[in-house]
Amino acid sequence: MKSYRKELWFNVPGRRGFVNITSQVREALRESGVREGLVLVNAMHITASVFINDDESGLHHDYEVWLEKLAPHDPVSGYRHNVGEDNADAHMKRQIMGREVVVAITEGELDLGTWERIFYGEFDGGRRKRVLVKILGE
Amino acid sequence: MKSYRKELWFNVPGRRGFVNITSQVREALRESGVREGLVLVNAMHITASVFINDDESGLHHDYEVWLEKLAPHDPVSGYRHNVGEDNADAHMKRQIMGREVVVAITEGELDLGTWERIFYGEFDGGRRKRVLVKILGE
Amino acid sequence: MKSYRKELWFNVPGRRGFVNITSQVREALRESGVREGLVLVNAMHITASVFINDDESGLHHDYEVWLEKLAPHDPVSGYRHNVGEDNADAHMKRQIMGREVVVAITEGELDLGTWERIFYGEFDGGRRKRVLVKILGE
Repeated sequence: MKSYRKELWFNVPGRRGFVNITSQVREALRESGVREGLVLVNAMHITASVFINDDESGLHHDYEVWLEKLAPHDPVSGYRHNVGEDNADAHMKRQIMGREVVVAITEGELDLGTWERIFYGEFDGGRRKRVLVKILGE
Repeated sequence: MKSYRKELWFNVPGRRGFVNITSQVREALRESGVREGLVLVNAMHITASVFINDDESGLHHDYEVWLEKLAPHDPVSGYRHNVGEDNADAHMKRQIMGREVVVAITEGELDLGTWERIFYGEFDGGRRKRVLVKILGE
Repeated sequence: MKSYRKELWFNVPGRRGFVNITSQVREALRESGVREGLVLVNAMHITASVFINDDESGLHHDYEVWLEKLAPHDPVSGYRHNVGEDNADAHMKRQIMGREVVVAITEGELDLGTWERIFYGEFDGGRRKRVLVKILGE
């Protein structure tokens, strides 16, 4: 059994944003040499997500509007978590979008559907944050 | 280490529906011969889900109503994604219900709680779509 | 390849609550002897969650208020599932918070970010319920 670990670092300007990280995960897979297995990709921060969806700017705008409706940033004082913080909404948004994805590895490739792309979802940006890629297989 | 891969195909009539796929995942597990390990079951489409919950028609009705409230299909023009498409809401519903489940395999069986059943959740149906079952273990 | 299985049992008084189970998952990892691999931690009940977020009481209060807004318990009769039951809302809350987490194991430790803690989320408590810890690796 082989295992491989890599951290990906991001610094999203502004509070929120989505970054397509599919090629970086694919690169980690190449480095691992694993042909059959699983790859776990997870945010290591609790105000960020890793999720799989479409790389389409209209949809990303819709997600932004939708998440803001379901878990609004303002009023900041509406959350008890926001004592010296202003990111309670980010903890909610991250639960809807998810912490992690697990993707199958088949014949040395990410076993994704036609339109599946892996994203880093930032909900409290403006600083360096990281994603863990952990690969298990052989 | 053994690995096994199988695609399950679905064609849900109408826009939305839930299909209990537990027995199909169990069949894939039998075919794999794996006794101890993990099975990943994921939608290969970004407007569909795989999730675990109850096989109860009242609850499925409640999910339908609830998801429509949180991420309404109409008005279609309310989403920027809907340029030549009408499925932006499906991308949102899928995030709430999730892309995938990972289930433990113990002594050759799916290690599920008493009422846990695996479902395919369709949010943009009327065409053939698929689920990936990837089994890893020995 | 090693595999290890352990059930954690909980009896949360009242309907809802969050329990930090990080140390219990860490203990299971020690028992397994696995140094490199993955651990799956999942609720075995469909009205409970396992999720990763912050161990901060203000945030937990905010989650409680937020989930009640997105999927209210009352009116109980507003859900078709509630025929002889009153927990339809718990099935919804669990979908938002998630059934499971998968955590990397690196050099014999849970490979978590600085503030990541693993929680059991109870949405229909007052009875004994369990979480599955399944560890795979070597």
